[in-house]
Amino acid sequence: MVGGMRIVKVPLGDRSYRIRIGENLLQGLGAECRRLGLGRSCVIITDDNVGPLYASQTEWSLQDSGFSCCRISIKAGEKSKNLRLVHQCYDQLAGFKLERNSFVLALGGGVVGDLAGFVAATFLRGIDFVQVPTSLLAQVDSSVGGKVGVNLKSGKNLVGAFHQPRLVLCDLDTLQTLPEREFRSGLAEVIKYGIIYDRRFFTNLEKLMDPILAKSPETLSRIIARSCAIKANVVTQDERETGLRAILNYGHTIGHGLEAISGYGKYLHGEAISIGQVATSLLSVAHSGLAPKECDRIRQLFVMAGLPVGVRLNASQKKALNQAMSLDKKVRKGEIRFVLAKRIGEVCVDQSLPQSSLDSVLKQIAAF
Amino acid sequence: MVGGMRIVKVPLGDRSYRIRIGENLLQGLGAECRRLGLGRSCVIITDDNVGPLYASQTEWSLQDSGFSCCRISIKAGEKSKNLRLVHQCYDQLAGFKLERNSFVLALGGGVVGDLAGFVAATFLRGIDFVQVPTSLLAQVDSSVGGKVGVNLKSGKNLVGAFHQPRLVLCDLDTLQTLPEREFRSGLAEVIKYGIIYDRRFFTNLEKLMDPILAKSPETLSRIIARSCAIKANVVTQDERETGLRAILNYGHTIGHGLEAISGYGKYLHGEAISIGQVATSLLSVAHSGLAPKECDRIRQLFVMAGLPVGVRLNASQKKALNQAMSLDKKVRKGEIRFVLAKRIGEVCVDQSLPQSSLDSVLKQIAAF
Repeated sequence: MVGGMRIVKVPLGDRSYRIRIGENLLQGLGAECRRLGLGRSCVIITDDNVGPLYASQTEWSLQDSGFSCCRISIKAGEKSKNLRLVHQCYDQLAGFKLERNSFVLALGGGVVGDLAGFVAATFLRGIDFVQVPTSLLAQVDSSVGGKVGVNLKSGKNLVGAFHQPRLVLCDLDTLQTLPEREFRSGLAEVIKYGIIYDRRFFTNLEKLMDPILAKSPETLSRIIARSCAIKANVVTQDERETGLRAILNYGHTIGHGLEAISGYGKYLHGEAISIGQVATSLLSVAHSGLAPKECDRIRQLFVMAGLPVGVRLNASQKKALNQAMSLDKKVRKGEIRFVLAKRIGEVCVDQSLPQSSLDSVLKQIAAF
Repeated sequence: MVGGMRIVKVPLGDRSYRIRIGENLLQGLGAECRRLGLGRSCVIITDDNVGPLYASQTEWSLQDSGFSCCRISIKAGEKSKNLRLVHQCYDQLAGFKLERNSFVLALGGGVVGDLAGFVAATFLRGIDFVQVPTSLLAQVDSSVGGKVGVNLKSGKNLVGAFHQPRLVLCDLDTLQTLPEREFRSGLAEVIKYGIIYDRRFFTNLEKLMDPILAKSPETLSRIIARSCAIKANVVTQDERETGLRAILNYGHTIGHGLEAISGYGKYLHGEAISIGQVATSLLSVAHSGLAPKECDRIRQLFVMAGLPVGVRLNASQKKALNQAMSLDKKVRKGEIRFVLAKRIGEVCVDQSLPQSSLDSVLKQIAAF
């Protein structure tokens, strides 16, 4: 904690960057960008929820430091993460006459960050990119690690790139205006870090859930910084997801499947992976030795966070889910590969499972 | 020359690859891909000119070595290098259930290579990519160096990525079926390598133009290998175009501008940059000390290759050209930056020029 601000370093050689976490950081954004030597022109990509709240403040900060800004606002929601909008952004960037040393700034949640990041990764073959994640989910997950991209009709994140930001700035103030449901959705990724990597962090979350839900800045700063540090740790060991990084997908194969069959709208991402993680923990009891008691603790923590832990699917929905999962990027040689938990804080990757186990778990979570 | 085949190595660390140049190479393609350990599923992207001639042969070779192939055929021509087709390719790749270790094989000229390469660079955040360039232009230029991408309405190659192929295979036989105009267009890039990097190569081209135009395999193999080696040399020194690589753009700012204002259809790329290089050589006489005699030799060599060296533009076309050039990726701080020649074999980069010089050169080339 430096002057009320926590800094997490992401060391990736010449693509290294810092994540800054604290209150009232947005006003210092321009100065930060200047310190990094970014080009003087910038396009802010935001959405129609976040833009009205924070875009002017962002622009003032940048303009005060000598940057000239344009703004692109997209419709809020996962449905905007598509190629049509990417194309529109390209046309606008070309219209603004952005140059190679210009940069794109994502101001918003995961959708804005993923879309804006993909635009930055591919416009003029890649220009600089700054993330100002305004949702908890984006602050602890999507803004860290360089994965950017959009969805296809046939699956989530099927198109994308690895493009590291130059800076990530998490202003805790933005969480105060975040809808409650979105905030809880972000906690699904926070809890995940405990399950996959840090048993003590998981135990702390069990103790801290009250101040977390009360949005205590000190507690939020602590859990966001720890989440970012875990993700950064994993990502720096495996930038392009050839091995370790797969552990971050705990609960995501099923979660992405649920999002896909419900048309990316019914569930927030965190809600879908909350159900996905509970289902995966049940699979872990059956296949990787997770103690039933720990499986219960996992489910309890998601419940405490106010997240859904079950879903009742009819036969055709189950079929659609299996189909959607077979399109997942983690598929290899036609088989879906799962990340399973051995105990809270430790997982194993690349596990294939019989269809019967999946069917049985879908039955179990229908009762939750 | 190994067994009638020349090999140019492109050393880029863990992204290193080889360019194989020779006759009758297509039949060995599958074995080569196998030797590289590529995944067993592959999508061939080709066009409706090249596909009917070489796609079956390509598929047989791959299938003989145990690969399973699907084929996507696009309409031939620069107009296909657009985001709509990229989107269609993504949907088809998802439909074919391509996985992360699958690969995309580009069978065709520069348009196919650039489009297929961009699809490979971004599908599932990047999968393996093999280039089988079938035009001279693609063999000596676009297939080497990892630049992939598509055009926007507002400019050429404004969207793209750097994605190195795992293998480039230049089968000289494909040049025998290449339309004469396309073949000559490719020579514009070959001549460029002499101007920017290798005075002796330029002199050799002056001597060898007859066997080149007669498509002597020995001569073609020699000039293609030398062209690839020069490009590889430049690219390995500057993979992401932060400095030296800019010299490859000699004549391209004006050339791209001409392509843009004629709607990417009137001129072949090589024809546009032939005019662009002649115009740039005239600018070089005025601004970087190129001897008028050398400028004449440059123009003469393009004429010998059967390429256009002049264009007559009316006032509104001139205005449009200036506008198109100001959208060029080489623009910095609002000023267009040119690569100019000091002598044949040596250039200087990052030169800004007064508008009056450009106007005067456009007048000169109207007379050619």
